[in-house]
Amino acid sequence: MGNQNSVYIISGPAGVGKSTISQQLVKQLQQSAYISGDDISHMHVNGRQKPWESQEEINLIWSNILSLTKNFLLFKNDVVIDYVTFPSEANWLKETLTDMNVTVHYIVLWANQDILLKRDALRIPEHQMGKRCLELIQEFEDAEVSEENILDTSEFEDHDVPLIVKEILNTRKYIMV
Amino acid sequence: MGNQNSVYIISGPAGVGKSTISQQLVKQLQQSAYISGDDISHMHVNGRQKPWESQEEINLIWSNILSLTKNFLLFKNDVVIDYVTFPSEANWLKETLTDMNVTVHYIVLWANQDILLKRDALRIPEHQMGKRCLELIQEFEDAEVSEENILDTSEFEDHDVPLIVKEILNTRKYIMV
Repeated sequence: MGNQNSVYIISGPAGVGKSTISQQLVKQLQQSAYISGDDISHMHVNGRQKPWESQEEINLIWSNILSLTKNFLLFKNDVVIDYVTFPSEANWLKETLTDMNVTVHYIVLWANQDILLKRDALRIPEHQMGKRCLELIQEFEDAEVSEENILDTSEFEDHDVPLIVKEILNTRKYIMV
Repeated sequence: MGNQNSVYIISGPAGVGKSTISQQLVKQLQQSAYISGDDISHMHVNGRQKPWESQEEINLIWSNILSLTKNFLLFKNDVVIDYVTFPSEANWLKETLTDMNVTVHYIVLWANQDILLKRDALRIPEHQMGKRCLELIQEFEDAEVSEENILDTSEFEDHDVPLIVKEILNTRKYIMV
């Protein structure tokens, strides 16, 4: 053991605060990298499919996230992955990293539907998810995320982000075994 | 042969137009990905060194660029890499991709020093390179880039970007052999 690096998968539906929380979390880690799945996804310019309509596109995105994660681990960094990640994908990532002596934390941020829709409406129009926002909530409910991996942020206010980050850093139940 | 994908390395000193030209180029390719070395570099948050002062940081960045390039090639995309790339790095990338049936084009954009400094001064202050801009010009001169790989843009105007992109797409001399 010893010197074990961590990978934090920060997941959850649109509008739940993945990016805000991930970016604060990565700053709390001594040597760290931030991987935005959305940024990775948009590196694909022509020929890109919508990830939620194309398993091929999802495979490409996860190949890229995996490669970057491995490289950052090899260079002794903790890694924060900010992306809509379902349990099957988190499990695949964890299995694939088995021989790298790494702890994988899987956190599905949650909030009630009203909050999510309200936050989505506050985004600039190009970033609004609209109908897709509701579909995502349903997909997470269908995926039967383990209770242990859920972090409900409904009761938190915007200025509570440091508390949420602390909870992620100090709670062992998010670690995938 | 047949179905050979291409990798375009768009290099050159700061202010020469790498990003503008790369982003137009990637749109001209049927299935394509755009990799910004600067974006990759900034995924590293804590523990990051300035790349021009740390070979370790450079190695991390190029490991990441290489992994992404390979993945995009495996998924049948052409790849545009937008980054300060010296001949030794371009050669390493080409050698490392040898078994992937790919054509690597290496383009070092150039302009006279006055133009580069003027463009640097026009950036928002956080993005200005200042002294580093002059150092980079010197480093490219010291690296003795082959005449064949240089594309001098001094005579082009801003609205000429499509002409430069056409030149990159249609000129075989940029292909590394």
